[in-house]
Amino acid sequence: MSTGELGNTFPHMPTVHIPQLAQGERVQSEFLVLDRAEKPNNGNPFHILTLGNSTGRIETAPVWSNQSSLVDGVERGNVVQAIGELSLYNGRGGAPRRQLMLTAPLRVIPSEQVDITSFLETVGDCTHLWDWVDKQRTTMQSQTLKNVVDLFFANDEFRVRFERTPGSTAGHHAKIGGLLLHTFEVASIARTTARTTRANQDLVFAGAMLHDIGKVEAYEVGPAGFSTTPCGLLLGHVVLGALMLERALVKLNHPVCSDGQLLELQHMILSHHGSLEFGSPVQPMTAEAEIVHWADEASAKASDMMDSIDDPANFLTGREVSDGRPWRVKRHVYRRPHDWQ
Amino acid sequence: MSTGELGNTFPHMPTVHIPQLAQGERVQSEFLVLDRAEKPNNGNPFHILTLGNSTGRIETAPVWSNQSSLVDGVERGNVVQAIGELSLYNGRGGAPRRQLMLTAPLRVIPSEQVDITSFLETVGDCTHLWDWVDKQRTTMQSQTLKNVVDLFFANDEFRVRFERTPGSTAGHHAKIGGLLLHTFEVASIARTTARTTRANQDLVFAGAMLHDIGKVEAYEVGPAGFSTTPCGLLLGHVVLGALMLERALVKLNHPVCSDGQLLELQHMILSHHGSLEFGSPVQPMTAEAEIVHWADEASAKASDMMDSIDDPANFLTGREVSDGRPWRVKRHVYRRPHDWQ
Amino acid sequence: MSTGELGNTFPHMPTVHIPQLAQGERVQSEFLVLDRAEKPNNGNPFHILTLGNSTGRIETAPVWSNQSSLVDGVERGNVVQAIGELSLYNGRGGAPRRQLMLTAPLRVIPSEQVDITSFLETVGDCTHLWDWVDKQRTTMQSQTLKNVVDLFFANDEFRVRFERTPGSTAGHHAKIGGLLLHTFEVASIARTTARTTRANQDLVFAGAMLHDIGKVEAYEVGPAGFSTTPCGLLLGHVVLGALMLERALVKLNHPVCSDGQLLELQHMILSHHGSLEFGSPVQPMTAEAEIVHWADEASAKASDMMDSIDDPANFLTGREVSDGRPWRVKRHVYRRPHDWQ
Amino acid sequence: MSTGELGNTFPHMPTVHIPQLAQGERVQSEFLVLDRAEKPNNGNPFHILTLGNSTGRIETAPVWSNQSSLVDGVERGNVVQAIGELSLYNGRGGAPRRQLMLTAPLRVIPSEQVDITSFLETVGDCTHLWDWVDKQRTTMQSQTLKNVVDLFFANDEFRVRFERTPGSTAGHHAKIGGLLLHTFEVASIARTTARTTRANQDLVFAGAMLHDIGKVEAYEVGPAGFSTTPCGLLLGHVVLGALMLERALVKLNHPVCSDGQLLELQHMILSHHGSLEFGSPVQPMTAEAEIVHWADEASAKASDMMDSIDDPANFLTGREVSDGRPWRVKRHVYRRPHDWQ
Amino acid sequence: MSTGELGNTFPHMPTVHIPQLAQGERVQSEFLVLDRAEKPNNGNPFHILTLGNSTGRIETAPVWSNQSSLVDGVERGNVVQAIGELSLYNGRGGAPRRQLMLTAPLRVIPSEQVDITSFLETVGDCTHLWDWVDKQRTTMQSQTLKNVVDLFFANDEFRVRFERTPGSTAGHHAKIGGLLLHTFEVASIARTTARTTRANQDLVFAGAMLHDIGKVEAYEVGPAGFSTTPCGLLLGHVVLGALMLERALVKLNHPVCSDGQLLELQHMILSHHGSLEFGSPVQPMTAEAEIVHWADEASAKASDMMDSIDDPANFLTGREVSDGRPWRVKRHVYRRPHDWQ
Amino acid sequence: MSTGELGNTFPHMPTVHIPQLAQGERVQSEFLVLDRAEKPNNGNPFHILTLGNSTGRIETAPVWSNQSSLVDGVERGNVVQAIGELSLYNGRGGAPRRQLMLTAPLRVIPSEQVDITSFLETVGDCTHLWDWVDKQRTTMQSQTLKNVVDLFFANDEFRVRFERTPGSTAGHHAKIGGLLLHTFEVASIARTTARTTRANQDLVFAGAMLHDIGKVEAYEVGPAGFSTTPCGLLLGHVVLGALMLERALVKLNHPVCSDGQLLELQHMILSHHGSLEFGSPVQPMTAEAEIVHWADEASAKASDMMDSIDDPANFLTGREVSDGRPWRVKRHVYRRPHDWQ
Repeated sequence: MSTGELGNTFPHMPTVHIPQLAQGERVQSEFLVLDRAEKPNNGNPFHILTLGNSTGRIETAPVWSNQSSLVDGVERGNVVQAIGELSLYNGRGGAPRRQLMLTAPLRVIPSEQVDITSFLETVGDCTHLWDWVDKQRTTMQSQTLKNVVDLFFANDEFRVRFERTPGSTAGHHAKIGGLLLHTFEVASIARTTARTTRANQDLVFAGAMLHDIGKVEAYEVGPAGFSTTPCGLLLGHVVLGALMLERALVKLNHPVCSDGQLLELQHMILSHHGSLEFGSPVQPMTAEAEIVHWADEASAKASDMMDSIDDPANFLTGREVSDGRPWRVKRHVYRRPHDWQ
Repeated sequence: MSTGELGNTFPHMPTVHIPQLAQGERVQSEFLVLDRAEKPNNGNPFHILTLGNSTGRIETAPVWSNQSSLVDGVERGNVVQAIGELSLYNGRGGAPRRQLMLTAPLRVIPSEQVDITSFLETVGDCTHLWDWVDKQRTTMQSQTLKNVVDLFFANDEFRVRFERTPGSTAGHHAKIGGLLLHTFEVASIARTTARTTRANQDLVFAGAMLHDIGKVEAYEVGPAGFSTTPCGLLLGHVVLGALMLERALVKLNHPVCSDGQLLELQHMILSHHGSLEFGSPVQPMTAEAEIVHWADEASAKASDMMDSIDDPANFLTGREVSDGRPWRVKRHVYRRPHDWQ
Repeated sequence: MSTGELGNTFPHMPTVHIPQLAQGERVQSEFLVLDRAEKPNNGNPFHILTLGNSTGRIETAPVWSNQSSLVDGVERGNVVQAIGELSLYNGRGGAPRRQLMLTAPLRVIPSEQVDITSFLETVGDCTHLWDWVDKQRTTMQSQTLKNVVDLFFANDEFRVRFERTPGSTAGHHAKIGGLLLHTFEVASIARTTARTTRANQDLVFAGAMLHDIGKVEAYEVGPAGFSTTPCGLLLGHVVLGALMLERALVKLNHPVCSDGQLLELQHMILSHHGSLEFGSPVQPMTAEAEIVHWADEASAKASDMMDSIDDPANFLTGREVSDGRPWRVKRHVYRRPHDWQ
Repeated sequence: MSTGELGNTFPHMPTVHIPQLAQGERVQSEFLVLDRAEKPNNGNPFHILTLGNSTGRIETAPVWSNQSSLVDGVERGNVVQAIGELSLYNGRGGAPRRQLMLTAPLRVIPSEQVDITSFLETVGDCTHLWDWVDKQRTTMQSQTLKNVVDLFFANDEFRVRFERTPGSTAGHHAKIGGLLLHTFEVASIARTTARTTRANQDLVFAGAMLHDIGKVEAYEVGPAGFSTTPCGLLLGHVVLGALMLERALVKLNHPVCSDGQLLELQHMILSHHGSLEFGSPVQPMTAEAEIVHWADEASAKASDMMDSIDDPANFLTGREVSDGRPWRVKRHVYRRPHDWQ
Repeated sequence: MSTGELGNTFPHMPTVHIPQLAQGERVQSEFLVLDRAEKPNNGNPFHILTLGNSTGRIETAPVWSNQSSLVDGVERGNVVQAIGELSLYNGRGGAPRRQLMLTAPLRVIPSEQVDITSFLETVGDCTHLWDWVDKQRTTMQSQTLKNVVDLFFANDEFRVRFERTPGSTAGHHAKIGGLLLHTFEVASIARTTARTTRANQDLVFAGAMLHDIGKVEAYEVGPAGFSTTPCGLLLGHVVLGALMLERALVKLNHPVCSDGQLLELQHMILSHHGSLEFGSPVQPMTAEAEIVHWADEASAKASDMMDSIDDPANFLTGREVSDGRPWRVKRHVYRRPHDWQ
Repeated sequence: MSTGELGNTFPHMPTVHIPQLAQGERVQSEFLVLDRAEKPNNGNPFHILTLGNSTGRIETAPVWSNQSSLVDGVERGNVVQAIGELSLYNGRGGAPRRQLMLTAPLRVIPSEQVDITSFLETVGDCTHLWDWVDKQRTTMQSQTLKNVVDLFFANDEFRVRFERTPGSTAGHHAKIGGLLLHTFEVASIARTTARTTRANQDLVFAGAMLHDIGKVEAYEVGPAGFSTTPCGLLLGHVVLGALMLERALVKLNHPVCSDGQLLELQHMILSHHGSLEFGSPVQPMTAEAEIVHWADEASAKASDMMDSIDDPANFLTGREVSDGRPWRVKRHVYRRPHDWQ
C-alpha cells in the first residue's frame, strides 16, 4: 500500500525491510511502538519493546534497568526513530532469532506528523492475493455471480478500502491487508470444499468473497490502532455486509441479479457465523452457506493457532509446550521439538 | 466391493444399476428394504418403501390401501425380490423423478440366505478415491510420515476393512465406503487449508488419513444395518484410533517414528473433535491438528446439508424451504428455485 | 377485517359470534377445523374437534366411537358446515363451560371455495388497539420520530397488512391481529418502563411500534394456517425489519431522519431479541433498546402463560396444577383454587 | 433519611447539595471517598477521586503527580473534609461537566467518628415513591392482598429498614433507597403489564411489593459500604423473602390469608428470578408471577444501562460508543450524538 | 408397611412373594398393572403386562394376538386378579428368567375397592434401614444435632410418612420406602466421605438425614401412582425441607439449637442440589454441605445406573451393550458378559 | 519420602516439623518460598512470605516496609535459610495462630544445590494410606482384579513414583503424596457407595485405584513446582491412564485378564470424569464406573472446600463468611462461629 499520498509526514527515512535484516546490519528508521512489555526475569526486570513497520515487527534486545534512558517516555502507540544493530540470540528450537539492539535513545515523533496506517503491520505485498482473486473471477462460469462479485472487486475504490481493512481489530488477521488475506484463505478453502463435496463452486466463491465485506464499514484505523466504528457496533459487520450488498445493487440502473438471488446471497452473508450465539441472525440453510461458514472458521482458527505457536513470548521457559494458555486460543499450544523429514 | 466370497447366497439376480434405470424399464431384482414409511396424505394413507442395493436407492410408487398385498409382511431390514417398472412423476422443481411401480407382491428372502452388506448403500466405486489417496501418498515429502500412513494404507487387509466402514452409523456418510469418502474429503480440504495457511501439508495429510481409523473397530454391519461395537461404545472411536496407531507400531521390529512423533500423531487423532464437549479428551494444540479438526467439521456438515437438501422427503409440500427441520441439520433448509448461470 | 373482496367464496352463512352463544342456542354455520384430538378416556376413546371462526373457537362435545359418522373424513384444515346446539358442562373450577353438540354430520367445503383467513382466530375487533396507537402517535413530542412511525402506521396499506399478521406462526399471539395486539402490549409496557426509569418515551414508543414490522414479510397465511415465508427463514424477521425501515426511507424524496437516527432505530430493531443466542445479531446498546427488549419478553411470556392457564386441556384431571407441562411454557402451571377478594 | 440519631458524629458541616452546585461555587464539606482512580493519560498519570454524600457524587479535577500532597494517604472508604471550588470542563457531547478542584489537602476523619450511612449515595428524597406506594395500597380492591402488603408496608419500622436497603450491594440500584426505587419501578411496570395483558393487577402489585423484601435481611451497610449478610449468603434473599412472609404471618393472632394464598405469594417471591440458573428454586407458574419476574428484569437491566450510559468514565475518548464494555452490562453502550426533536 | 387399616378392601388374597416364586408354581393373587407394553416382534406383535405388588414386579409371558381375551380391557393402573403359572425363559447372559404365564383372563377389581398404595412397589422390609438409622442416631456425639435429627426421626408419625414417601415420582428410588433407602445411602456414603476427608461426621449425618425431608410434603400417592403435590411444585421440595425444619422448631417450647445452627442446617438442605441450575437457590458453603450434595448425586446416579442395567427391556437384542439409551441415564449401558472371579 | 538419594544437596539442616513448633521456639532451617504476597493494609503495605518444607507451611509475620532488607531479593521458588522465632497472633475465631517472626535476613540457596521436591508440601507420612491400600488388596475376592491392581500397586518402583505425584498441579491435593491421598479417598468413598448400592466392590476398588494412574506420567516436579508434562497436555491423564494399563499388560508373558476385562477397566479409567465436557471421551456405562466418578468428584470437591475454609487468607476481615470467593470453589464459604456439641 502506497503512503505517498500523505505528503511530508513520517515515515521520512526509507522503510527497513524487517524480515530481510541480516546479522550485524545497522538500522536507522522510524517504527511504530506496538508494545512495551516488562519481563520479571527472576528479579532482574527488563523491558522489551516491539517495534513495527509495514513489513513486520521485531523485538528490541532486553533493555535493562541501567539502560532505561534508551526508552524513557516511550509508549505504545508512539512512532519513534530508532538506531541500533541487528543481533541474534538462540530462540525456539535452538534456531537463531533476531533482535534489535538499541544503540541510542529512541526519539518520539509528534503524533500529528505521523501516518499511523503506514506503520501498522501488514500482511505484506498483496499482489499475489489480488492475482489469485482476479484469476478466480475470470474463471467463474456463472455470469450473474461474476457480475455481483465485480460490483465490489472490480471497483478500484472498494479494492483500496478492502485492502486496508484488517480481518479483526485485535484477533485473527488483525493487520492491514488481513481482510484480504482472510478472504483469500476462506475462498480458497471453500472452493476446495465445494469441489470435494460437489456443491456449487461459483456460488461458494462468491459467498466467500462477500462474506466479510461489512468489515470495510465496521472497522477503522484510529490513533490507537484498529477499532470498531459506531455502525459496526450498532449493526454488526454481518448485517452491514447484507446492507452493503443491497445498497450496491440499488445504485445500479439495471438488475444484476433477481430478488431471489439477492436473497440467497444476503442469506450467505448473514449466516456465515454459523449459529445464533455467534452473531448470525440465521443459520446456514444451503450447502454453500454452510461451506463458507466452515471455511471462515478454519481460516480464523488456523491463523490464531499459527500466530500463537509462532509467538516466542508464549515459550519463554523453553519448553515444547507453551508456558500458559495464549489468549488467542485459550489453551496450551505445542511447538514440536522434532521435525518431520 | 466383491461379494463373490459369499458363495451361493443372495443376491442371485444381476444387480440392477439403479441410477441408470430408464423410464418404462422393467425391473426384476433383489433389494434391501431400507425403509417403509406411511404417508398420511390427507386421510388417504399410502405406503412408500425405500429399496436399496449397492448402487443406490429408489422409492416405490405409493402403495395404496387397496394394494396392500403387494407389500404385506415386508419390513425394514428384509431383502426382497421385487418385480416392477420404472415410472416418472413430477418431483422437485417440476423435474421428473423416478419411482418403482410394483407389479407383483414382494417376496421376502430368508435372512440366513442373505449377505446384507452387499445390499447396503455404498458411495459407489471407490477407485478414484483410492487413486487420489495413493497419489497423495506418493508425493509426500516426509518419509517418516509416509511410513506411518503406509502402516495402514499400504496394507491390503486394512484397506478392505477401511473401505467397508461407514463414516457414521446413521449420520453423515453412513454408507459402505463412506469412511473412505469422508477421509478423502477431510484430507483434501485439510491439504488446501494447510497450503493456504502455510502449515505442514504432509502432517496435515497424515493426520487426516489417520483421524478416523478407530471407526474400523468402532462400527460394524449387523442384521439391522450399521451399528456401534461394544468397544466403540466403551472406548469411543477417538481413543480407539490412538490405540490402533500404537498397536500397529508395537507390532513392528523397527521404529518407524520417534516417541515424540507418535505423541504428536496420537494428539491429532485424540483432538480431532476439537473440544471436550464433543468427545475429544484434549483440544488441538498444533495448527495441523486444528486444521484436521475443521476439515472434519466441513466434510461432515456439508455432507449433512447436501443430503438434507437432496432428500425430496423434506420438500413434500413443494415449497423452496423445507417443510420441517430435517433431523440431520435441525433447521430449515433451502432448495433454490433459481439457477446461477 | 373485511372479507368482501373474496366474492362468492365461503363463508356463505352469517358468522356466528362464538363468545356470545347462549345455552341451547342452535348453531348452523361454517367453521375452520383447527384441531381434531383423540382422548384416550380410560379405554373408551372419543374425539373432540376444535372449530373456529374469526370470533373465537369452541370445542365439540365428545364424539364417541358410535357417533363417528358425524366427523368421518374431517381433518384439521378443512372448512366445514356444522349444525348443532350449544350445551354446557362443568369445567374448570366447577364453572360451566360451553361446547357444541353436533346434531348432523359435518360437511366439508372444497378448499378452493374457501377463504381460510376469514376463519382464522383473530384477536377480535382491533379498533381500540388502533385508537390507542393513533392517540399515542398524536401525543409524541418528537416530530422526527412521529414522522418515522407514520411512514408505516399512517399508511393504510401497511395497516391492513400489519393487522392481518400474527405475532408468531404457532406460539404467542398466533392470531390474526396478534401482531397488532402484541405491538400494543409492548408499546404500552415499554412506555411505562421508560416513564418510570426516565428514558426517552417517544423513542421507546417508536422502537416498540417498529420492532416487529419484519413479521409482515416474514409470516404468511397458507392452506395449513400461519407459516414463515422463505425470506422470513433466510433473513429472519429481525433483519427484515431493519431492511423494511431502510427501504421505506429510500423511497421518499426527502429525508425524514438523519443517517445517525436511522442507525439508532435499526439498532433497536436488530437488538430487540436481547442477545445473540436468541437471534439478535447485536445486543441492546441504549436504555431504550433494552426497554423495548424486556417489554417484548414480558408481552410474549405473559401471553403464553395466560394461554396455558386458560386452556382447560391442560387441567383434565381437575387438579389445581396442570397435568403436564404445557408446551408454550415447558413447566407446570397453576390455576388458583381460591380467589383474591 | 434522618441521621440525627447518631449524635455528635460526622457529618458536622452542612451537607452540600452536589447536583445544585454552580460554577465557581466554593465547597467546604465532608464527603465519603467512593473511589480513587489512577488514569494513565499517556504517560502523565493523575488521580481522580470520586467524592460522595447523600445527594450524589462528584469527581475531583485531575490531581497531577506534582500535587499529590492534596490526596496523600486518602483511601477509598475514608470520610474526608474537602475544600475546593466547582469548575467546569467539556465532557460528553461537548456539554460542560462539573468537577471539584481541590484547593487544600483533604483531611481524613477518624472512622470511629463517622456515620458511613449518611454519606452513602441515596436515590434522594423518597417521599414521592412512598406516596405512590401508599396511593396504590389505597386503591387495591382485594382486601386480603391489601392486608398482606400492609403487614410490611404499613409497618413504620419495616419502612425505615426497607428504605435504607439498597437494591443490590454493587450492581443495580446500589444506593440507600435503591430497594424502594427498584420496588416502585417493578410495581409500576408490572401493574401496566397486568392491565395490558388482563392479569390480576392487585396480585401483581402485591407480588412486586414483596418480591425483594428478603434483601432487608440479606444486605447490610458495613465499613466498606454495602455487603451481604451471612444469612443472605447462606439462604439467599429469595428464600429469605419467603421466610419473612411466613414469619410475619405466624406472629399474628388472626389469619390474614389462607394457607393456599400464602402458598401462592411465597411462590411469587421464590420464582421471581424466573429460572433455576438465576437462583429461583422454582419457575413462575402463574401469569402474575411471570409478570413480576419480567418487570424485575426490566427495572434492573434498564437501570444498569442508564447508569452505564450516564457514567462519563465510560466515554473518556469522546466517542459516541463507550471505550470499553462497562461492567454493569458487559457490552459496548451508545451515547447518541443527535437528539430526537 | 401394614395395610390393615384399610379394612375390607383389596388385596383380599394373600400377597404372593414374587422374588421367591419357583418354576411351575401356581399363582393366584391380586396385582397392580404397572405397565402394558406392545412389542413389535418383527410383525407378530404381542403384549407384555408388568404386574406388581409390594414385593416386586414380574412380567407376563408374551400375550399373542390370538390370546388377547386374556388381557382385554386391562389398563395401566388397574388392580387385577391374575391366575397363572411361573415359567422360565432364557434371558440375560443365558441365565433363566421368570415370567408369569396367564392361564385365565385377568379380572379387573373396581378401583374404589382398592388400596393402591399396598400394591406399589416397595423397597421391601425397611427394618434394617431403620435399624441402621437408629444406631447412627445413638452414636452421634453432638447432642444438639441428635436433638434436631430426633425432631423427625424419633417421631413415629413422621417415620410412617417418611417411609411411605418415594425418592422421586418416576426417577430414582421411585418406590414406597425409596426415600428411606435413598436417605440411608446418602447418609452412609456421606459419613464415609466425612470420615475420609476429616469433616464433621455428625453434621454430615444430620444433613444427610434432613436433606430430602421436604419430599414428605412434596410427593403423594394418587390413583395414577406417585405424583407431586401443588406445594411441591409451587415451592419445591428443597425449600419445603427448610420450611419444615423451621416449623418443627417453632412448635417446641424450648430451643433445640441456636439461630446460627438452624441457619447452617437450612443451608445444608437448601444447597443439597449443588448448584443453581439444578434448583438449589444457594451453593454449598461448607465442606459438610458439599459432602451431602455429592453423596446425594452418588446415590441417585448409581441407583439409576443399576436399574438401567438390571432392566432386561434394555437388552432385547441380546447384546452386551443396551439396544438404545435407557431414559434414566440417557446413554448406552453395558452388561458385562464376563465375571470377575 | 526419603531424600537421601540426593547426596550433599540441601536441605542441610534438620527438617523442622512445622506443625509441632511451639510458641517462642527458635527456628533455623531451610525452606522453600511458596509465595510472597504484598498486603495493602490500608496504605501501610507489608509482605508476608509463605515458607514451606515437607511437613507443612507457615507464614512469616508481616515484614513492614522498614524491614524490607529481611526479604530483599527473595522470590517465589527460592530455597532460603531462615532464622526466626515462632510467635502467635489472634487468628480465626479468636484462636491463636502461629507465624514465623524473621530475626535475620533470609539467605537464598543457589538453585543448583537444591532438591526442590524435598521442600514441597506433602500430605505427610503415607504409611497409613499404604497400609489401608495393602489391606484392601489382601481382602479382594476377585483374583483377576487383584492381579491387575498388583501390576501397579505391588510394584515398588511404581509405588515410589505414585507417592511422589500430586493430585493436581495447582488444584485439589496439589501435594507430594496428594495422588495417593486422593486415591485413598476415592477408593474409600467408592467402596462404601458400592456396598450401599450393591455394586461390585472389588471392581469399584480396582477402578478407584487405577482411575488416576495416568497422572504419574502427566505431572512432574519442575523448578517452579508442579507442572504438566508435554504428554500430559497432548494426551491428557485420562487417556494416559488407559495407555499405561495396556502397556503394563503387554509387557507380561501371560494374560492377567481377558480382552473384555481389559476393555471394562479401560472404560472405567476413560469415563471417570463423568461427561464429555469434563474431558472423558466416554460416559460411564456401568454402575461401577459411575460410582468411581462420583467418588472422584466427592474427594476433589470436599478437599477444595476444606482447603478454602481452612485458609485464613480467605477470612481477613474476620467475618464468618469469606471476604471474597476463594478461587478453588468460586463462591463464598462459611466458617461456622458456633460449634456442634
